[in-house]
Amino acid sequence: MRARVHITLRSGVLDPQGQAIRNALHSLGFGDVRDVRQGKYIELDIDGTDPDATDAEVRRMCETLLANPVIETYRVEVVPGPEA
Amino acid sequence: MRARVHITLRSGVLDPQGQAIRNALHSLGFGDVRDVRQGKYIELDIDGTDPDATDAEVRRMCETLLANPVIETYRVEVVPGPEA
Repeated sequence: MRARVHITLRSGVLDPQGQAIRNALHSLGFGDVRDVRQGKYIELDIDGTDPDATDAEVRRMCETLLANPVIETYRVEVVPGPEA
Repeated sequence: MRARVHITLRSGVLDPQGQAIRNALHSLGFGDVRDVRQGKYIELDIDGTDPDATDAEVRRMCETLLANPVIETYRVEVVPGPEA
């Protein structure tokens, strides 16, 4: 299976990286950019054929390694993989 | 408008960060993880009401700042924003 994980900062958590991007875009003339938030996008290829089991496993990965649940939220999406 | 940008390494480009994540997952007992690729996910809030114009503008941002077109590809998605 293939899992797609989006990890983003919780709303209210300061995002200095996003602010740096916004400032750089302003300097480049993109003045209509109001806000920028940067997150992570991770694609995993996982052995297995059960989407529910894969989903549960990837959530455990997020809780233990991929995300910091204190300041980040994550979204998991499981699709048939390249060698599902 | 709100734009969602996915930036990923081109296939064939080595992804040491993804490999590090895979190795860490293996150490944690997630041995069925075959491959991991890490990319970036950026959300931008942009003044404007024309989805096509916003899409074109965000692509220019990707080419000039957000992505490195030599080794990365990007995907842009424009949706009605929080204050569309």
